[in-house]
Amino acid sequence: MVTPTKEVSANKLAHQDKLVSEMEKELGLAADHPEDDEVLLLSPEDIVANLKAKKSGWTSERVTIAFIRAACAAHRKTNCLTEVLFREALADARAQDAAFKASGKAEGAFWGLPSSFKDTYNIKGTDTSLGCSIHCYDPTTEEADEGGLVKLFRKGGGFPYAKTNIPQTLLAFECSNPVFGTSTNPYSSARTPGGSSGGEAALVTLRGTPLGWGSDIGGSLRIPAAYSGCVGLKPTVGRWPAAGTRKIIQGFDGIKPVVGPMARTVAEIEFASRAMINLVNEEIAEGKFLAEYVIPLPWREAKLAPKLKIGYWVDDGLVKTSPACARAVHESVAKLRELGHDVSEFRPPIPIWQALKIFSALSSAEGYKQLLGNLGPDPMEPSMQLVTLGTRLPSFVTSLAATIVRLLLKDQLFGEIMSASKPKSAAEYWDWTAARNDYIEAFYKAAWEEEQYDFILSPVQAVPALEHGRTKELSPLAIHTIFYNVLDSTVGVVPITRVDPDKDAAPADYTAGSTGSWLLEKRVYGGDDPAYDATKMAGLPVAVQVAGRRWDEERVIAFMRVLEDNMGYK
Amino acid sequence: MVTPTKEVSANKLAHQDKLVSEMEKELGLAADHPEDDEVLLLSPEDIVANLKAKKSGWTSERVTIAFIRAACAAHRKTNCLTEVLFREALADARAQDAAFKASGKAEGAFWGLPSSFKDTYNIKGTDTSLGCSIHCYDPTTEEADEGGLVKLFRKGGGFPYAKTNIPQTLLAFECSNPVFGTSTNPYSSARTPGGSSGGEAALVTLRGTPLGWGSDIGGSLRIPAAYSGCVGLKPTVGRWPAAGTRKIIQGFDGIKPVVGPMARTVAEIEFASRAMINLVNEEIAEGKFLAEYVIPLPWREAKLAPKLKIGYWVDDGLVKTSPACARAVHESVAKLRELGHDVSEFRPPIPIWQALKIFSALSSAEGYKQLLGNLGPDPMEPSMQLVTLGTRLPSFVTSLAATIVRLLLKDQLFGEIMSASKPKSAAEYWDWTAARNDYIEAFYKAAWEEEQYDFILSPVQAVPALEHGRTKELSPLAIHTIFYNVLDSTVGVVPITRVDPDKDAAPADYTAGSTGSWLLEKRVYGGDDPAYDATKMAGLPVAVQVAGRRWDEERVIAFMRVLEDNMGYK
Repeated sequence: MVTPTKEVSANKLAHQDKLVSEMEKELGLAADHPEDDEVLLLSPEDIVANLKAKKSGWTSERVTIAFIRAACAAHRKTNCLTEVLFREALADARAQDAAFKASGKAEGAFWGLPSSFKDTYNIKGTDTSLGCSIHCYDPTTEEADEGGLVKLFRKGGGFPYAKTNIPQTLLAFECSNPVFGTSTNPYSSARTPGGSSGGEAALVTLRGTPLGWGSDIGGSLRIPAAYSGCVGLKPTVGRWPAAGTRKIIQGFDGIKPVVGPMARTVAEIEFASRAMINLVNEEIAEGKFLAEYVIPLPWREAKLAPKLKIGYWVDDGLVKTSPACARAVHESVAKLRELGHDVSEFRPPIPIWQALKIFSALSSAEGYKQLLGNLGPDPMEPSMQLVTLGTRLPSFVTSLAATIVRLLLKDQLFGEIMSASKPKSAAEYWDWTAARNDYIEAFYKAAWEEEQYDFILSPVQAVPALEHGRTKELSPLAIHTIFYNVLDSTVGVVPITRVDPDKDAAPADYTAGSTGSWLLEKRVYGGDDPAYDATKMAGLPVAVQVAGRRWDEERVIAFMRVLEDNMGYK
Repeated sequence: MVTPTKEVSANKLAHQDKLVSEMEKELGLAADHPEDDEVLLLSPEDIVANLKAKKSGWTSERVTIAFIRAACAAHRKTNCLTEVLFREALADARAQDAAFKASGKAEGAFWGLPSSFKDTYNIKGTDTSLGCSIHCYDPTTEEADEGGLVKLFRKGGGFPYAKTNIPQTLLAFECSNPVFGTSTNPYSSARTPGGSSGGEAALVTLRGTPLGWGSDIGGSLRIPAAYSGCVGLKPTVGRWPAAGTRKIIQGFDGIKPVVGPMARTVAEIEFASRAMINLVNEEIAEGKFLAEYVIPLPWREAKLAPKLKIGYWVDDGLVKTSPACARAVHESVAKLRELGHDVSEFRPPIPIWQALKIFSALSSAEGYKQLLGNLGPDPMEPSMQLVTLGTRLPSFVTSLAATIVRLLLKDQLFGEIMSASKPKSAAEYWDWTAARNDYIEAFYKAAWEEEQYDFILSPVQAVPALEHGRTKELSPLAIHTIFYNVLDSTVGVVPITRVDPDKDAAPADYTAGSTGSWLLEKRVYGGDDPAYDATKMAGLPVAVQVAGRRWDEERVIAFMRVLEDNMGYK
């Protein structure tokens, strides 16, 4: 039987395939154009410089064609695209070239560059469906409603050329939905590129776009960057505009989503961030972006002290961090010490799992009613099941299940987190908001005021990229990234190493003595088919998180560069 | 019968009187020291300059003594003080003088200055009782817990010397509580100085402090400034620290309180704001104030365009603005046009009363449980009755009462606002938060992006200072100030004129044709004893509000000065 969902999906995919196939036919395949590497291996900053300098053979059209070919190849490999705007981008590129030829003027930091954007960003003429069939064929019609960073990217002389895949309604760190299907990891088709900015991470890592633009409310930009092996920055809320998306949840102020850049190198992240922040401040001065919470804080070039004070931790107290992910932190720590920095282990004053409990309590407070309303006739992805479970059951069943987990299964932490996930009164919601504020204050006082750390280093997740479907039972693994959404910190993700079966195997007694959640740890490390398996994961990227204070984008980026320059990830 | 409340109150007042009387005895009365005017008539900036220049006869001790005498006189007149720190301040002043003599160093913008603070600010060694007996005899013990602006004021070389009176729990725009009693208006003992920063406004207006520091969540700084005749600034949330107060409500993020300066002139507000913002940024650079939401935005000297675009309105649509308050706006508009500015009437895209409804719905969402919990054994002040009514009744009674008002009494607006004031689910709370966000977006788009107004001018309230007890039935009059808390705008209050019975009498048919709330308008203008009476109000100050964008403190202050310089209020 063809359900409405399947029909919409079939039509969307057929149209997508037509647009990709046409380009492959017109422009040829990436494999047949090794000369594209001249473009693809260059940083976006250098590409723009070449274009503006009218370097021989360099036009926006040539750049765009090279990236379209690369994006087609990346899509064939990972199913990373949703909306395809190649033809529009080619027209934009040719118009840019013609205007430049006529006027001699090529202005803007992004001049002549195409870029992809996560499906969440509104772009005129295309859907922002978020993988929900009811939102298909409902394109953004007004330029004013485009994503804030899309508008700024255009103002900077660039143009969008593709949108990328996400999990259904964004509430998962896999990348699958009933409309566009499943995106895969650039390093393993059996694994997810992460979510929710999964398609973007795959495309960026495969050099299918000069720059990528994701979003993050619980790790949605950072987990895909870590799983797929690219670099990403989650700024502080308000550093640049985040509006111009389909509003799938309204009125939730407990944890605010942010948008940010993803790229292959930290230098590219810096280029993108500096350019965007300069554009933001230009626009504010011109009387734009006033209807949104955007702070008029100019870009401040970062000067790091020669000796930095760095805090770090390896374990979140809920699920023991895998040998590979622990090694990424330990090797970074060792290198930083070698470089002369003052590095010490730090324990947040309130246990990390409490931050997950707060996140869970706040985000579930209205029962995910608005979120689930986006599903319409679509089947719910398995990855959303556990997260929304507590709000879909009668509250006594949730309490019962949580009690069983806590007392009968003797998993205190998991039981506590489960019990927090349910619909609430406004009074309870205020109590949880107060708990969040107390958490923030305690952490900031301890880490930034008392210890005076410059940065804090931690894993992005306990494990590298998981196989498709694994998050169904492992959604609490997002704890490491959720932590910094609760705190509203500036955080970057930098790949550090790759899984090495010789170094990273988890021994049979790996979680012995752990005081975390044995139910979760069993799924990660126990049984016949553990989620973490260093042999099966061989070669997967492993990243770390680098957190700074609020509005600390410039310094966090500078410190990301220290790690990139010294850790030698390739 | 002596209740616990009365006992606490008697003890607190006896101690307060002892401290004031001792000073009057030791230092003499202000009336006997006309030479104090040399100090009292100078701006704080000039006082500091004289001190630092070692001008003959100028010491911090002399300045402090002059202000203590003035503060004692102001307190005898208006009952404006709560905690008295005169002796500590004298010791501080003498220590400052001695240190200066020894080292030759007098550093900090506030060097040598005493200042009062609203009772809400924690100050080491004193209570922050907020007029609640259960919070008496529970002083702040750690310097780290002092109010953020108190700490900065100390860092800038100043010292606190008194705290000032507020209404019970702050939720009123009168100034009365069961512990410290009732503060009165500097211009009429029968009238309130406004609330909640009422004691501060009275003290500032009577030149009993070089600078005043209030707070504002619905007009708490602006209404007292307008009622009492001083100048005040409500900054955007996050421009400087607001922490360091007794947390009487926790976890309420819907509308955030801010703190700000009150003074006799705009130049003094500018001095205080520039100094505080400079100190904030110094502290952040030194690794302090990191545990709070404070934006690292430096002070930016304002340059106003020679021709400004100004929007204005007179009526809020709920209660017709009185002739005196309307005249303050109209005369300002006429003067601004005379000065060559482009001034036009503006109607917010969503009616103003909807902002009051949103404020009421958000702030009542947990039923004022936390707030009312502060009352302990204390009787509830009448001024709090109407505000908290809807949450103290069973919800069907609230609905019934609201329906009666709406349908039977045919007062649609008042009925709608009443019906929004009740305990809610988190889902309903999110809906109201979304309504707030929509309101902000619509207003900001219309006012700042489309019209490109530089500033917006409006009344502070429909009426000048009310008689004590009037707010019991008139709390919705705070609509004009609440409006800008919902919007999180930068707003200043500037006195413009005084009530003139010849110009400002309200004719009998004044509200004829009004589509606002007739129940409220009847209480303001109708019957034998209307709240507004130009004859009884003769000579009372009348101010306007000047609103700018977010983080627009420098420009708003500069524009306040335009009004002050040109309107000739005295």
